Amino acid sequence: MRSFIDEFAIGAFLLPAELEMLQSGIISKHVAKGQVLLKKGELYGKTYFVKQGCLRSYSVDEKGKEHIFMFAPEGWIISANESLLPNTPAELYIDAIEASEIEVFDREFMARFEESPTVPRPVFAKLVKRMAVLQRRIIMLMSATALERYQDFLATYPEMAQRVPQKMIASYLGITPEALSKIRRGLAKGHH
Amino acid sequence: MRSFIDEFAIGAFLLPAELEMLQSGIISKHVAKGQVLLKKGELYGKTYFVKQGCLRSYSVDEKGKEHIFMFAPEGWIISANESLLPNTPAELYIDAIEASEIEVFDREFMARFEESPTVPRPVFAKLVKRMAVLQRRIIMLMSATALERYQDFLATYPEMAQRVPQKMIASYLGITPEALSKIRRGLAKGHH
Repeated sequence: MRSFIDEFAIGAFLLPAELEMLQSGIISKHVAKGQVLLKKGELYGKTYFVKQGCLRSYSVDEKGKEHIFMFAPEGWIISANESLLPNTPAELYIDAIEASEIEVFDREFMARFEESPTVPRPVFAKLVKRMAVLQRRIIMLMSATALERYQDFLATYPEMAQRVPQKMIASYLGITPEALSKIRRGLAKGHH
Repeated sequence: MRSFIDEFAIGAFLLPAELEMLQSGIISKHVAKGQVLLKKGELYGKTYFVKQGCLRSYSVDEKGKEHIFMFAPEGWIISANESLLPNTPAELYIDAIEASEIEVFDREFMARFEESPTVPRPVFAKLVKRMAVLQRRIIMLMSATALERYQDFLATYPEMAQRVPQKMIASYLGITPEALSKIRRGLAKGHH
């Protein structure tokens, strides 16, 4: 079970005092399956790092229908507001779809992080990787077939197809669970 | 007309030698309206900074229909592959929708940039801002009404509604030009 510090604060670019300062702003937490961490509209959406388990973020439309924005299994960072700015309302709900061990970055952590004139390369690289996922997701939502979107889901989240209920995958893809079943049957038969 | 260096290399965090090294990897270029800079599938998608004018990126679906991913007016950075990795095929087409003055970051620039152990805060901040735009765009595509999507477009791109053909805005929103006209008429009459 790797922590945020394990993944990102490695190497020589942090002094022991800086490392300690970072660590003091991170709170470890256990969350039960189904627990809601954050609701849309709440101010100061915290940021979470997943050590074990899986969180998800989602929106709810006018008709009360859920649309899954992102899954966050082990090693992912998830937040309800990508701008990371304090006092900005959360744009998404976040809850735990499995019992999870997470790290919460508090307000002070983010403030300290923002004061630093440079950002460690591994943190930047993670952000670039996330941006690539977001870009592909938009392209897929705009112009890909449901089959292509499902294949992109499998590439982005290996293993998640086994861990997540089918209806959640369908919600992520923007299709009905029935349409997803049809795609999976087609793939199993090697029709594609 | 501000350059990339004007916007991002300001402040004390770059030595004169580093600044010179960065500048040597940036090529200024004039592009004519309609000029295609990059096609989907081309290797090593370059990254562009817009000094004046406007670029756009888009995908083309199976039926040959264009879907606009992003507009890049003055001060925006645009690339066809958010992973920024060399030798990765471009996921999008990029062309100029106005005569534009741009800066092209070449292969060496990106390599040099990637070797540095830390990233200047303004570059990181720009990336976070872009990520926030991408996140909002996904939420909108998933679950917002066409009116909400149009209002988000206006907030993200002030002035662009006057500069860009209506059919391009409709393509960005994923609606027909007729549906967009209806929304605009409704807003003009103050129905919303």
